[in-house]
Parts: sequence; structure tokens; C-alpha cells
Amino acid sequence: MKHAISDEALAQIFLEARTYNGWLDKPVTDEQLRQVYDVMKWGPTSANGSPGRFVFVRSPEVKERLRPALSSGNVEKTMAAPVTVIVAYDLQFYEKLPQLFPHKPAMRDLYASNAQLAEETARRNSSLQGAYLIIAARALGLDCGPMSGFDNAKLDEEFFSDGVVRSNFLCNIGYGDPASFTTRLPRFEFHDVCTLL
Amino acid sequence: MKHAISDEALAQIFLEARTYNGWLDKPVTDEQLRQVYDVMKWGPTSANGSPGRFVFVRSPEVKERLRPALSSGNVEKTMAAPVTVIVAYDLQFYEKLPQLFPHKPAMRDLYASNAQLAEETARRNSSLQGAYLIIAARALGLDCGPMSGFDNAKLDEEFFSDGVVRSNFLCNIGYGDPASFTTRLPRFEFHDVCTLL
Repeated sequence: MKHAISDEALAQIFLEARTYNGWLDKPVTDEQLRQVYDVMKWGPTSANGSPGRFVFVRSPEVKERLRPALSSGNVEKTMAAPVTVIVAYDLQFYEKLPQLFPHKPAMRDLYASNAQLAEETARRNSSLQGAYLIIAARALGLDCGPMSGFDNAKLDEEFFSDGVVRSNFLCNIGYGDPASFTTRLPRFEFHDVCTLL
Repeated sequence: MKHAISDEALAQIFLEARTYNGWLDKPVTDEQLRQVYDVMKWGPTSANGSPGRFVFVRSPEVKERLRPALSSGNVEKTMAAPVTVIVAYDLQFYEKLPQLFPHKPAMRDLYASNAQLAEETARRNSSLQGAYLIIAARALGLDCGPMSGFDNAKLDEEFFSDGVVRSNFLCNIGYGDPASFTTRLPRFEFHDVCTLL
């Protein structure tokens, strides 16, 4: 039987983790981003479909291509972050199911024949994968600043002009500046949002 | 500067965690479910909106109310699981923003005036919260079996007849039976789905 992970680890990934709006001047290496992916990739998705696609934007030139799509409140922190990852999804993720879910070939056809189901599945599961990415980055000692305040259509036109891949949300990654947040916002109590039946 | 959490903890929440289809005969207590919520609630959501709503189904009577909505392959394992949580979302989550995001009252109005944005935000963020729930449960020593193979409309009619709350996905929770899975399914390599720019 497994036990709980340490209090320190729980604090790092959830209890004391914060969304950062400012970043220390310390780079994130390609190797760290590969490690984050190699952890988060193991999180579960429907039929192992893994529809998430991830564009890690580091260079100032490519950051500038993000800028026009960002809500005004998200510009400065995104330009300053060592990395901004575009969490996206592949609407035709099902074409890889013969490789990812080889024991049940009918799943590919189920999604291929139902565009609405495929889109809902791609969106839901790329959101799950985005959450796994946030937790994996924190688990490896990095900090995150996820954002959905941007113009998805404008960003997609710039980065995913083929129309098959679409943006879901953005997440800044780096070493957070503790001076960039203040009081922690409240959360619902268990009884506010949970029901035991 | 934070370091990575231990290899053991990483293994428990991601690297060696598995989706379970069979369950040991060992109960999950209400206190454990409260602990899972009190960990996962700290995960980030857009404007701290926390649209996820969670129905923890334990009793055989209520499990029977789930049954008609389940895909055939999901019936047996769901009936056998100590707990099945319905991860749902509140389409009017924005009405709580004055409490959850008190420093920016305009956010409530932004969502209240745009039903499509509110629905997309509720779906995306309840998916994030569902992922936090999976990782939090694993971090506390439990195992999960998430599923999207069910009839959302049928389930919602049974559990959320007011039309304001809608199901997103289901997740069995308990102590997984290691005999209930075989070979691990493959994942994409970094270069298959990630781009460094």
C-alpha cells in the first residue's frame, strides 16, 4: 500500500505553490523542459490519445509573435518569463491511436467519424495535460504562471495556420519572483463544492 | 531555489502511476476524500474561478443511478470501485468571483455577459481541476481510474437536473488491484509533440 508523499513535496506541488507574475533572471534549460515533458507525459488521457501539443517559446523574437494576441495584463510578465509554453491540441489526434492504443483499433474510427466528439476530447484531454505540465514543472523545482487571457484565434493564425492544431492556454515557466504576488486568494471549502453520496 | 521532489514521489504521482480497472476490497474514508479536496483545491484556475464541482458516489444505491449512463466497458469497474467521483462544472461559476477574486470585480461581468466564454472557461478549468484531483489522490496514496466513456446528457439528467451544473468526466478512486492492468501503453517522445522556439 502506498503512503502519502512527503509534506514538503505536497507543499511544493500544491499547498504552497503559487501562480507567479514576475520572474527571477535565471534561465530554464532545454534539458529541464525535456524533463518536464518526460514526467507529465505519463498522466492519463482518454484512450491514451495524448492530444496535447506544446510549443515552448523562449526567444525574444518568437515572444514578439505572441504579444499581439495577449490581454494587456498578460504582456509584461509573458515577455519577461524565461519560457512561455503554448498548450495546444491536435484535432486529428486520433490518427495516432493505432500507435498509442493498439489493442482497440475501433477507437480511432469512433473519433474520426465524430468531429464534435474528437474536438471535445482533444480540448478536455489537452487541459488535463496542461495541468500535468504545471504540476510536473513544480515537482521539478520550477514555477508556473498559467493564463487564458489571450485571443486564441489570433494566436492560432500566427502559430498554427494549418487549422489542425489549436491553442488551449498559455503557461509561463521559470523561477518565480516571490515579490510578484501578495495575499493568497481563498478557495471553496469542501462542503461548498463537494457532495458525498 | 526549490529542488525536485524525491524520485519516489515523482514515481508515485506520475512515472509509475497507472490507471486502474480493478480495485482491492479496501474502503476509502470520507476523511481521505476531504484531504484530496484540500490538496487539489490549491491548483490554479482562471481568475481563481474554481468552476469544478465534485460528486463522490460511494453507496451502491447511487452507483446504480450511474449505471445507465456508463459505456459497457466502464460498468463493472465503476460498480466495484470504492468511490466514483463525478467531475462536473458550474456554468454560473462567475457568481462566486466576488468572493474568490475580490480585487477585480469586472471579471464577474466579463463571464456573466458572454455565455460561450463562461462555458469554455468552466470546461477548461474543471478539466484542470480534475487533473489536480487525480494527482492529489495519487499523492495521498490512492489510485485512480479516470473515464470519459459515458453519456453526459443522461448522467446530467439524473444528477444535475437544474441544467446549471454539467458533468465533465468520471474518476474511480480506491486502492488499485495491480492484477487489473498489463503492459503500459506508449507515450509520444518529446520531439513528436513538443517544439522549442
